[in-house]
Parts: sequence; structure tokens; C-alpha cells
Amino acid sequence: MVLLTRKVHFCASHRYHNPELSDAENKRIFGKCNLPHGHGHNYVLEVTVRGEVDPATGMVMNLTDLDKVVKNVVMEQIDHKNLNVDVPHFATTIPTSENIVIWLWGQLAEEIAEFATLQRLVLHEDPFLCVEYEGEKELSEEPVAR
Amino acid sequence: MVLLTRKVHFCASHRYHNPELSDAENKRIFGKCNLPHGHGHNYVLEVTVRGEVDPATGMVMNLTDLDKVVKNVVMEQIDHKNLNVDVPHFATTIPTSENIVIWLWGQLAEEIAEFATLQRLVLHEDPFLCVEYEGEKELSEEPVAR
Amino acid sequence: MVLLTRKVHFCASHRYHNPELSDAENKRIFGKCNLPHGHGHNYVLEVTVRGEVDPATGMVMNLTDLDKVVKNVVMEQIDHKNLNVDVPHFATTIPTSENIVIWLWGQLAEEIAEFATLQRLVLHEDPFLCVEYEGEKELSEEPVAR
Amino acid sequence: MVLLTRKVHFCASHRYHNPELSDAENKRIFGKCNLPHGHGHNYVLEVTVRGEVDPATGMVMNLTDLDKVVKNVVMEQIDHKNLNVDVPHFATTIPTSENIVIWLWGQLAEEIAEFATLQRLVLHEDPFLCVEYEGEKELSEEPVAR
Amino acid sequence: MVLLTRKVHFCASHRYHNPELSDAENKRIFGKCNLPHGHGHNYVLEVTVRGEVDPATGMVMNLTDLDKVVKNVVMEQIDHKNLNVDVPHFATTIPTSENIVIWLWGQLAEEIAEFATLQRLVLHEDPFLCVEYEGEKELSEEPVAR
Amino acid sequence: MVLLTRKVHFCASHRYHNPELSDAENKRIFGKCNLPHGHGHNYVLEVTVRGEVDPATGMVMNLTDLDKVVKNVVMEQIDHKNLNVDVPHFATTIPTSENIVIWLWGQLAEEIAEFATLQRLVLHEDPFLCVEYEGEKELSEEPVAR
Repeated sequence: MVLLTRKVHFCASHRYHNPELSDAENKRIFGKCNLPHGHGHNYVLEVTVRGEVDPATGMVMNLTDLDKVVKNVVMEQIDHKNLNVDVPHFATTIPTSENIVIWLWGQLAEEIAEFATLQRLVLHEDPFLCVEYEGEKELSEEPVAR
Repeated sequence: MVLLTRKVHFCASHRYHNPELSDAENKRIFGKCNLPHGHGHNYVLEVTVRGEVDPATGMVMNLTDLDKVVKNVVMEQIDHKNLNVDVPHFATTIPTSENIVIWLWGQLAEEIAEFATLQRLVLHEDPFLCVEYEGEKELSEEPVAR
Repeated sequence: MVLLTRKVHFCASHRYHNPELSDAENKRIFGKCNLPHGHGHNYVLEVTVRGEVDPATGMVMNLTDLDKVVKNVVMEQIDHKNLNVDVPHFATTIPTSENIVIWLWGQLAEEIAEFATLQRLVLHEDPFLCVEYEGEKELSEEPVAR
Repeated sequence: MVLLTRKVHFCASHRYHNPELSDAENKRIFGKCNLPHGHGHNYVLEVTVRGEVDPATGMVMNLTDLDKVVKNVVMEQIDHKNLNVDVPHFATTIPTSENIVIWLWGQLAEEIAEFATLQRLVLHEDPFLCVEYEGEKELSEEPVAR
Repeated sequence: MVLLTRKVHFCASHRYHNPELSDAENKRIFGKCNLPHGHGHNYVLEVTVRGEVDPATGMVMNLTDLDKVVKNVVMEQIDHKNLNVDVPHFATTIPTSENIVIWLWGQLAEEIAEFATLQRLVLHEDPFLCVEYEGEKELSEEPVAR
Repeated sequence: MVLLTRKVHFCASHRYHNPELSDAENKRIFGKCNLPHGHGHNYVLEVTVRGEVDPATGMVMNLTDLDKVVKNVVMEQIDHKNLNVDVPHFATTIPTSENIVIWLWGQLAEEIAEFATLQRLVLHEDPFLCVEYEGEKELSEEPVAR
């Protein structure tokens, strides 16, 4: 089993605000990320897939296929977008990196399953902060040794 | 004469739209940057100052002073902001990197002049694009040799 | 469960020398790192915490809290310091990246436990070398699947 | 147990072509990587070893030893080489990053075993693509907790 | 006047060999770069153009136009290519970074002239080596002050 | 004329202290850099040389020669050193990046002159700070156009 990771760059804007909390609480919890008109980032997403190496191609998954999935799921939906406004899911979910990566997992895992297994997503919000997600594994899903 | 460069990171959102042009023209010229609700970036700004090295400190300009100027001029005004909405100058000027860097020059040059000479600004909008500005020099401003 | 990683930069100096070994052995084992007056590095520390995403904030752990812990534990103790001289622990322990990361784990794990679980520390000594530590896990600590 | 990672840079050229497939299939699967005269990359290889920290040295493995192994196994064989032509293994195996990393594992694991345990190889083919390999573990090889 | 820089990535293989020199001389001068079957790199090219900022767009040059020129001149000719074999110019000219950048200048300057002025090319062969070229300026080409 | 830049990494420790100033003044001016036992950095030095491209080699200067000069002048003298203690020049000169780069220029310019012309030194003290030096040019040294 080999892991293959593709890194893609996209940019987006967002704002952190929980309408069920007071303005003071929002400001205390989210700081500058709660400023009223939002801000943005250059995100870097690392999509890691797992699989056997195909002897005919030497590849875990053809990059042409992986790039197509990433383009459809990631770029079309969120590149150059305002996450809170342009992506229905984030109308009611705060668009933190944690929530973005969980939301992307749900869509990418299914699309990639045709070719390989989605192993891990890492989302860099800036050079000093990233989140990592491996899906919600059931206790019986994997054999003991890794 | 030695040049000293400080790199600072900030993030902001923006949208490119010229109200004097038709929607079709805006879309043709600005592409995804014209999407209605904006997007954002992690910017990296390189502020380069020029001066003699002070024999008492070994420095062109004390970083404490330079950081204070950069904080007041750059960070307070545009970090975590929506440039089009939060910065009056960009209500009527398209917030491209070119226009941001010219606008920053006007303010930084004056604040830094107390300590050294602003030599150059480089603004990275993402890892694949940057702009560079050295102010508008008059023909007689500098001696021939550089 | 999502992992959240904060990267912080600090600088410090150190020297590798084991007083129980001969000078020749020290030189053979540590090479340039044994030079008598020490040298230094820009370190990058990646602090990774693990936890459930709080539905009210969309976060594993508030960055304000994480930054406060990192400032108190890491920056106050070792930034701009001479590790051998300024940090009592390294008076008798060789300040290799391996030993630094184990020492930091002991303090960070406890401070972070109030908010989330410390999952991993990665310490980059330079762009070509890093160490990674996940603490000393007991055999019964984790369920089988990861 | 601490992990220690060394990053090394090398450059090489290669071409993807499976002689058992038609030219059209080769072109469809490998795209530009099938162009007849090959191309090349600056590779970055991360070699991660695992072990207890030696109290006498503060190290998992002496970098002098690790660098010697990496020089002999990696640099001597493939730096500045044409993988398809200069490395016998890739005369009949397509030199994808997946296959390179599996081939390197076989040789590095044995050489490093004298000092520590090879834990992981990460091979970056360019800034947007990498593969990761941890060897083929037997189900009974490791205890449950990691 | 503002400078705008676009960074593009491409990969290629090459070999350094001067047929007018003996094999021994070739080996002494070019070292590993003279190995018979060549090697390769991930190149990063920085294309810097200079111009007035258009008040209607806020841009020195539209990135759509710049990207089209770079695609036609750079990517189509040398990405994923063997420079010595696939590019006629390098059949008789050694494909060093110096010669690549001079050759690219000749073609890019003309194509960009329709929109702005080519100011500078920087070509990174690897993270430790780059060349920079500003064309061959005539003494009378520019006013004294810069 | 083409510029060729070599980037080299070294590490060193230093302390900023001017014995002619009071302790309070030293602390005010140098802050953490005045802490009594010093600290250190991973420096990156960019050495840029200028020259005509030799038609026989395609090079401005052979990297073997440039690397030898850099090894002798830079690495032997300051890599893994304590600048204040190990380098006589910095016993009486504060080892700021500004002063380091001026001191290196004096030695590198002469050694490189045999092969090409030293054009520029850039010294990065950390990822957020660098200095740049082009020597002290006499007014009549260069023709008007650059």
C-alpha cells in the first residue's frame, strides 16, 4: 500500500459568526475572524489516497482522474468564493478549516472510491495553521497492524 | 548603504469590479475575481528600507521601529479586512495588488522617513503572483550610479 | 476527531557535549555541533492537538488558548535563549531536537489537556532535519482502530 | 520512541512507458510523461527512522551514519541519473514515484536496520505531488497501540 | 511604474556536453551534469513585466494575457521535454539555465511587448541555484534615474 | 550579462551588545537579542555574481569554483560558529546581518573577481528578515543604463 498526495491551491473568503451567541461572545471567541465583512485566505489542500500500485501503470491512482475529482469537488465549489454566502452548507455551519475539511471529506471520499481509498485530508489556512482529518473510522474497520 | 527587508503576513478579502464597465466586460476582464461575493488571500508584504548602518547598533533601522510602523500602517488597516468595504480608498479604486502597493507606499514612505528611506515594496498575493514598487522617482532624484 | 496544527518559529543556540565522554569521542560523535562556543538555529515547532469539533465554534481548540499555551511553555522558556545555559533541564541533558521535543511534550501535554489532547510534536531544526514525537503511549491507551 | 527525518534533494530524469500497451494507450494513461525523450524533476526524499533516544548522545541515530546510508543508497544510484537507462531496476519497472519509493525502501530498510528502524519514506516529485510508504507490514508485526 | 511577476513551474531534462571539448574536459567542467543519459529538474520561472497601472482595471497587464503568452512560449516548448533533443536551439547550445533564460527572453520580450515591457526573467533550476536576466540594454535606452 | 545566484545554508549563534552603552540602553535597543548567553539562526546566504556567458560552457561562472569560494570564505569561517567569540572581526563589531553581509562582501568580492564580478549578497536571518548589499559603488563605476 502506497499513499499518494496531491496538493492544490485555492482561495476563498469567510467570516466566523455564530448567530446564537451574543456579539460580545462572538468577538471574544472569534476575534478578528468575526469582523463584519469577512476576510480570506490562500488555502492549500492535500488530498491523500491509498491503494495498491497498479503494475501496468506504476500508479496508485492516475493523476488525471484525481485532478478531475479535485477540480469538480473542490475548485468548482469553493475556489474564489465567499464560503458563507456561496456555499449553502456554510450558511448554517461556521466555515472554519475544521468544518471545511469534514465537509470536503464527505464528497471526496465517495468520488475517489471508484479509483482508490481516501486516506487523509490536510487543509492549510495559512503557513502557520492546518487541520488534518482521516474520516470517522469505525472500530472494526481496520486490522490491528498498520 | 544596506537594504533591510521585513516580511509580514496578513489576510484580506477583495473583489474586482469596475462599475463603469458592463457586467460582461467585468467578467471578461476579471474572470473569477469578479464573482459577486468576493474571495481572499494570504498576502505577504516585503518592506525594504535603505540606509547607512549605524555603527552603534549595527542596524539600518531598528526592527522595533519598523515593526511598529508596519503594524500601524498595514496590519491595523487591512489585516482580516474586506478591502472593498473596510478601506475607504478601495471603495472607488479596484483593490488589485498593484493598487494596494501604491496605496501602501504613500503611507509607509512617510512613516519610515523618520528612520530610513523606503526603497521597495513587494506584495505577494499568492505563491504564483507578486508586484513590486519603488515609488515614482523623479529624474533628478538619484545619482547616476546605483 | 480532527487534528489542528499550529506552527511557531523560535530561535536558540546550543552545543552538543557529553562530559562523560572524552574530547575525541565528543568530536567524533557530534562533529561541528561539538565546537566549543556553540551555534544556533531557527526552529519551527508544529504542535498538533486532537479533539472533537465544537459545534458552537467549529473549532477543535480555540487558537487564542493554544497560542497562549505555546507562548508560555515554548517561547518564554527557549526563544532567543542559549539552551545549555538558560534552560536548567539542558544543563545535564544534551539539547538535541530529540531531547527538546520530549521535554516540551511533558509540559505542553498537561497545559493543553484542559482544552484538547496533544497528539504530536514535530520540531524542525533546519530545512533538512526534523523530529516527531507522539508521547509514550501505553499499550492499552487506544482502541484498536485508528 | 522518537522519529527522526532527514530530507535530501536529488535530481533525475525519467519517462513513463509500458511496452505491453499500445502507443495510444500509453499516451492516454501517461500524457506528457510519455513524451519520447523524457523529462526530469528535483526530487525531495524524506527518510524517517524510529528508535529510542540514546541517553549518551541524545539521538535516535547519528546523522553522520544516516547521511552515509542515504548517500550510498540514494545519491550514488540515482542523483543526476536517467532512471530508465541508468538504473537496471527501472529498465522493466515504470519509474513512477510509487515504484521509486518501494525500490528505495527495500535497500534503505536493510542498511538502516543496523542503527534504527526505517519508519517511513516520503518522496516529493514536485511541490504538488508526493508519495508516502511505510513498507509492507505483517498483521502481527506491531502491538495494537501505536 | 509597477512590476508584476508571474511564477510558473515546468519540468525538463537536459545534459551538459560540449562536443568540441574532450571527454575528460567535459567531465572536469560539467561533473555529474555530463553523465551520458542526462537528468532533469523542476524549474520555476519568474516572468516580470513593467508598466503603468491601467486605471480601468488596476492592472499592469491582465494575467489572462500574461498566462497565455507564458503558456505558448514556455510551456508548449519546454515543459516535460528533453531540452537537448526536443528543442532545436539546444541541439547546438548547452542548455544551462543561463542559456535557457537568454533564449526565453528573445521570445517572451516580443510577445509581451503588445501589453507591457518585459523587465526581468529569473529561472530557478533547483532551490539552491537561479539565474537572472534583464536583456541586453543599450546605454541610451533608459533615463538616468531608476 | 547574466546574474547567477547560489544559495547556501549555514547556522551560527550571536549576541547583540554594545559595551559603550548602558545595560538599560542595550536592552532597550536590542531587546531579546541582548540576552546574556546569545541565541542563533539558520542563515541563508544568496551570493549573486555577474558576467558574460562563456560560449564554451554556457555558464557565467563554474559552480564548482563558486562553491569552493563560498566554502572557504563563508562555511569555514562561520558555519556552526559563535560569531562574537569565534570570529575576530565580531569581537568589536556587533554581528547583525547588516555587519555580517558587509564583512562577507569584502572577502567574497576579491575571491570571486578571478572568475566573475560579485553583484549582490542577500542574507536571510530568518524567514521574516533579510538584508541586501551591493558593495559601495563609486559614482563613476557604472555606465548610466543598467
